Amino acid sequence: MKIFKYPEESNLKRILTRPVLDNDGIKNTVIDILQQIRKNGDTALRTLTKNIDGIELNDFQVTANEIDAAESMLSEPLKKAIRQAAQNIKAFHNSQIVFEKRIETMPGVICWRKNVPIQKVGLYIPGGSAPLFSTVLMLALPAQLAGCPEIILVSPPDKKSNLHPAILCAAKISGATGIFKAGGAQAIAALAYGTESIPKVDKIFGPGNRYVTFAKQLVQSEGTAIDMPAGPSEVAVLADEFADAGFVASDLLAQAEHGPDSQVFLFTDSATLIEKVSKETDRQLASLPRAEIAAKALQNSASILLKSLPEAVDAINRYAPEHLIINTKDAHILAEQIVNAGSVFIGPFSSEACGDYASGTNHTLPTNGFANSYSGVSMDSYFKKITFQEITHEGLKKIGPIVEIMAEAEQLQAHKNSVSIRLNFCGPEAALLRP
Amino acid sequence: MKIFKYPEESNLKRILTRPVLDNDGIKNTVIDILQQIRKNGDTALRTLTKNIDGIELNDFQVTANEIDAAESMLSEPLKKAIRQAAQNIKAFHNSQIVFEKRIETMPGVICWRKNVPIQKVGLYIPGGSAPLFSTVLMLALPAQLAGCPEIILVSPPDKKSNLHPAILCAAKISGATGIFKAGGAQAIAALAYGTESIPKVDKIFGPGNRYVTFAKQLVQSEGTAIDMPAGPSEVAVLADEFADAGFVASDLLAQAEHGPDSQVFLFTDSATLIEKVSKETDRQLASLPRAEIAAKALQNSASILLKSLPEAVDAINRYAPEHLIINTKDAHILAEQIVNAGSVFIGPFSSEACGDYASGTNHTLPTNGFANSYSGVSMDSYFKKITFQEITHEGLKKIGPIVEIMAEAEQLQAHKNSVSIRLNFCGPEAALLRP
Repeated sequence: MKIFKYPEESNLKRILTRPVLDNDGIKNTVIDILQQIRKNGDTALRTLTKNIDGIELNDFQVTANEIDAAESMLSEPLKKAIRQAAQNIKAFHNSQIVFEKRIETMPGVICWRKNVPIQKVGLYIPGGSAPLFSTVLMLALPAQLAGCPEIILVSPPDKKSNLHPAILCAAKISGATGIFKAGGAQAIAALAYGTESIPKVDKIFGPGNRYVTFAKQLVQSEGTAIDMPAGPSEVAVLADEFADAGFVASDLLAQAEHGPDSQVFLFTDSATLIEKVSKETDRQLASLPRAEIAAKALQNSASILLKSLPEAVDAINRYAPEHLIINTKDAHILAEQIVNAGSVFIGPFSSEACGDYASGTNHTLPTNGFANSYSGVSMDSYFKKITFQEITHEGLKKIGPIVEIMAEAEQLQAHKNSVSIRLNFCGPEAALLRP
Repeated sequence: MKIFKYPEESNLKRILTRPVLDNDGIKNTVIDILQQIRKNGDTALRTLTKNIDGIELNDFQVTANEIDAAESMLSEPLKKAIRQAAQNIKAFHNSQIVFEKRIETMPGVICWRKNVPIQKVGLYIPGGSAPLFSTVLMLALPAQLAGCPEIILVSPPDKKSNLHPAILCAAKISGATGIFKAGGAQAIAALAYGTESIPKVDKIFGPGNRYVTFAKQLVQSEGTAIDMPAGPSEVAVLADEFADAGFVASDLLAQAEHGPDSQVFLFTDSATLIEKVSKETDRQLASLPRAEIAAKALQNSASILLKSLPEAVDAINRYAPEHLIINTKDAHILAEQIVNAGSVFIGPFSSEACGDYASGTNHTLPTNGFANSYSGVSMDSYFKKITFQEITHEGLKKIGPIVEIMAEAEQLQAHKNSVSIRLNFCGPEAALLRP
């Protein structure tokens, strides 16, 4: 980790600027994959899975037998942990479902909103060395709570054509209605266009490698909604002289082990802390299985010494981190001043890992500075909020003249007419329903 | 309007398929405009405004004097109407601001969300023949209610380099913090990248022509958030034999006058109604100032006769209209079955025009089928919902072991360590804050 002491404005700006994500190198490959799936569906998916992943698949859908068998392959403690995490995630997400009141904005003019679940959602769960079953919980449980009728999960199979039992187990707990073996840009294309096996969905969720995230970006521009734009994972730790350097180092490393392009920042007003954290990071890094990855990530990372904590808060708001850990005295007061962050962890014992797995908050969060305008995945991500209104004849007599004046000023005569014709209606309202 | 009677499945599918929006013809122009603004800021904006719009501008920002003068140029009834509409819009949008409770998912594990306003929002108000001051209210009032510190409004000036007084008046009422004369793709670029005059914003809202909406799509893929993808405006009317044909025709025409690419559909189970509406539409069309535009839109439009109202509801849910007017007996019961629509108007007197201007609901809604996954603009569009959590030492003792098991199963040892190191901490919690 680089160390910057009291950087000047221009230097700070440079430090906080993220590397530009360049998709030029993979653009044509991904466009080609999308076209193949759109044109040839399952056949193309089968060919691409063979050519790219070296796996020959007959059927893409995971069978009920496979799902049932998965449960017996997990240890009891892991199953218990998954169930407890699911319970916490449900409790927190359930609290986000709010029923708003009907508002009578003028007498006889009644407006309201209703949460309606997106009918078909697609969830991408990355493969790779480890089974990311926590992401299954984070994406499928809110879909289940929202009442989405179709919850389609796709994930790349291993070399034996299987999905990991922890993924299947989490998917079952979370109410996935269809589980398919498919990965990469071709899986995103299958969800966006539909194939003979995999249903077309309305919205696609989930993290992935560059091919996956670029494919999501492309299908979004064609009209399929996605959860949010993607970027490498990141954490900012705001700490003062009172913070335990071992805790801080462990948080930085937990983020750094995600991938070589992860970014971690320590913001502090204590030069002593930087020194201690630096030593602790080296010490803890040495024994990590993913030390090589973490070490690479630390090369993109920095400790930044600032004159005061308010100055550090200001820098953090400019950076807009995905995760922010505030490990200082009076952490609550500083947390109140955060305007740009995905998720905030307050106090010495709130390790980010708790939020990644089990505390109840969602771990799908805006990275790459998108926290300035995007929220993490929540119940809001699975609902459309449809507005409704009902205006009575009496109500129209109140609001109609206002609409007529405004429509006329916007030179939209037919808009005005649609009100006037109703204002001129002089029969009893009931006459409209019994002609 | 074409008439389709009891169409078969394959035919219905074709009827409900929207024309594909093709941006190929304008792609290079828009990309070039974006690059010019990014590179040369105000200078490029000045040149483009001169070359494209034929207007020479010295200053882009509207002065306080111009804004103050605007008010005196509007009629009292119009000012009064705007103020009443603003009050209704505020009342309904204010009801959407909900404070969620803190949730203790396990003892000592506390999670909550907080609404934080997006710090800088940019609002595009189209120019053209009429001043769309209602869009100013719809986009700026929620930003003001959310507490967005910077609310930047851009709109193309007229040939005398002025913005219409109704736009300025609505902008003042709605708390815009900066108003700029700029239009087209160049205005979107200015908001996305910033120029010497126009501040860079975090999120861009507002309708526009093909250049504007394609520019929004491009800057979104570069990282600036936008309100939603765009498409031509549209309405579906669901009506039965009890509906007044004049009302129905007036609603169809109000939508049709928006633009030649607007689309209107009548879904009904009554052949008689289709006949009556057809005659009424012809009659009302004849006297419209925008008859030519409306007539073109009606060419893309259709009346669809179905066997029953439930069948019609099913077709509407497949189409996912931006606006839906339900003008039937028992309209409420049918409204309950709608899962894909932007905004729903219930009953004979709920004309869409009321929602366009003054009832309180937002008129910025998902078109082009996006209502299957997007909501209209609401308070949610101006907030980030940041999650927070605080875990006590006691809380960590409960949740920590769960996180350790899950992190280990995902082979993320550093995640596990960040919990273990805290669980192994045996001093009193206070020691961390007074070393």
